Amino acid sequence: MEMTAAYYEGNKQFTVKPLADLPPLEAGTVRLNVAYCGICGTDVHIYHGTMDQRVQIPQVIGHEVSGVVSEVGPEVTGFQVGEAVTVRPLQPGKATAFDNGYTHIGKNLKFIGIDTPGGMQASWVVPAYTLHKLPGGVSLKQAALIEPLAVACHDVRLSASKSGDRAVVLGGGPIGVLVALVARHQGAEVLVSEVNPHRLELIQSLGFETVNPMVENVVDRVAQFTADAMADVVFEVSGVAAAVDTMTQLLRVRGRAVMVAIHGQPKPVRLFDFFWKELQLVGARVYEPEDFEMAIALVDSGKLPLTRIITEVLPLTDIQQAFERIDDNPSGMKYLLHCNEQIQ
Amino acid sequence: MEMTAAYYEGNKQFTVKPLADLPPLEAGTVRLNVAYCGICGTDVHIYHGTMDQRVQIPQVIGHEVSGVVSEVGPEVTGFQVGEAVTVRPLQPGKATAFDNGYTHIGKNLKFIGIDTPGGMQASWVVPAYTLHKLPGGVSLKQAALIEPLAVACHDVRLSASKSGDRAVVLGGGPIGVLVALVARHQGAEVLVSEVNPHRLELIQSLGFETVNPMVENVVDRVAQFTADAMADVVFEVSGVAAAVDTMTQLLRVRGRAVMVAIHGQPKPVRLFDFFWKELQLVGARVYEPEDFEMAIALVDSGKLPLTRIITEVLPLTDIQQAFERIDDNPSGMKYLLHCNEQIQ
Repeated sequence: MEMTAAYYEGNKQFTVKPLADLPPLEAGTVRLNVAYCGICGTDVHIYHGTMDQRVQIPQVIGHEVSGVVSEVGPEVTGFQVGEAVTVRPLQPGKATAFDNGYTHIGKNLKFIGIDTPGGMQASWVVPAYTLHKLPGGVSLKQAALIEPLAVACHDVRLSASKSGDRAVVLGGGPIGVLVALVARHQGAEVLVSEVNPHRLELIQSLGFETVNPMVENVVDRVAQFTADAMADVVFEVSGVAAAVDTMTQLLRVRGRAVMVAIHGQPKPVRLFDFFWKELQLVGARVYEPEDFEMAIALVDSGKLPLTRIITEVLPLTDIQQAFERIDDNPSGMKYLLHCNEQIQ
Repeated sequence: MEMTAAYYEGNKQFTVKPLADLPPLEAGTVRLNVAYCGICGTDVHIYHGTMDQRVQIPQVIGHEVSGVVSEVGPEVTGFQVGEAVTVRPLQPGKATAFDNGYTHIGKNLKFIGIDTPGGMQASWVVPAYTLHKLPGGVSLKQAALIEPLAVACHDVRLSASKSGDRAVVLGGGPIGVLVALVARHQGAEVLVSEVNPHRLELIQSLGFETVNPMVENVVDRVAQFTADAMADVVFEVSGVAAAVDTMTQLLRVRGRAVMVAIHGQPKPVRLFDFFWKELQLVGARVYEPEDFEMAIALVDSGKLPLTRIITEVLPLTDIQQAFERIDDNPSGMKYLLHCNEQIQ
């Protein structure tokens, strides 16, 4: 079976080409056969052309990967050909004082799969330090969800959510649902706000309380959900102005709002609520290694219904169709690309 | 000397009247001879009529008080006539689940001097639990600054500022300067942003670095102040939209913005910066008992140049003139009313 790579060419177009001869590995790198690569909202933004200034076209994108080590480069220890792994796609650059010691979001960070070639190809070379080993028996399909699940673990960790907290998730797409699942796993009672009826149905079937802000007043619904105490934590995952306006109204005294969504433009915030109730807003971006370890342990435990979030798995050769289908189906959740047919 | 009380009558008017015969004290209360009462920005808002819906006219206002116990009511222990005290003007109501255990800002809180009669009178009755004793030798004039200083102690405490941090204070009025003084006392290097040249001169004379946002780009100035690391903490004390737009740009990774100012209307916030740099926003309102204790210890230590912040002391009978002078003098800082001429 021929190995291929998918290139984003700009203008909503991907081309799939045979992989050229594989060059020798540089020191500190590892070659993977990529099993599955999930399609992230960021990949969809790239497809829409909104990140053309950042992405060097043509570019292989993708960063939600499971795979198997196929070759180990010089000066790499601790990895063997045939081991199943996932990739933490962060390449920290030179540290700066601005970074404050947080290398996962430092000034010189490169995000693998956006700033450098990604995982939507049958064979992929990454720095060995980005790899996390998978425990035996973990499904490679589910393992493609470890990266977004690590985002959710990071979000919940930074929320400082405690067992017994009431949490509201604004936005029930893949990340919102993963945040809801992790927060519930940590002991929170969770309500999810989402506008899409099909997504709402899925979220309800996962056992969550829900509210549709197009139908109900979210503040009233959260008052009812919490017996007027209001929420301890709100995760803003929707990216829309209405949710930003709502989030502070949902919180009790000293409640915490976690900013997960990417708001490209400044949006009006009820700063009075921050003062009056001593609220906190906490920004959360990507993950640190411990979040990946927690996500791997969660997948390994089998305690989260992760397969329910996978809408469809398509072969890499159908990448164009996959992105078009995502645009046509706002009810969908996570789409995976099967990148190397030698691996199931 | 006749004892008087000043009543806010609405429409920018105060009347000063003789105090009626003093009624017997209720259980749990203490009567004070009020030495000095500072004029807070909130009092100025009341004078301007913007809080007429909340203040029951005619009302004695004022909540920044030093005084001496003149009578101890039934069921009060631990206080003696003649003791010097200050008042923490918070009357918590019935606790609710919404309060999350934070009684200082609970749903049923009444703020003494706004929601109930305040300290701009020669003799004042308050619940005994609001009193903090003053150490011997503390000046009663400086002690009238303990309440706003406790606000500053609370703001700095909630900022989680550490020794060596770089802090920026946006807004150099009385609270901004007190925040700067407390943050510096805790070991931070502090830069203050203020538009008024006279205030800037005072702030510089207190040894602070400054920036005038009407003259210089604040982001560039903070980059210079921090050798491009950017700030660990920003205190937003100005209440203006430009400062809200600026605050997130001044912070390094995982920096913290403290919302001290009261923004009556929602304002645009660069939420992207919260996500990208994992910033935190922390609302801070009034104080808890430990902040009062810290403020008293700071005044007692003599280590803060508090008298430099007192612009003028006027007798209570000149209250109308005092408020008019504040409106006419944006360069002014803290005005005190001398409320009982028997006490210096």
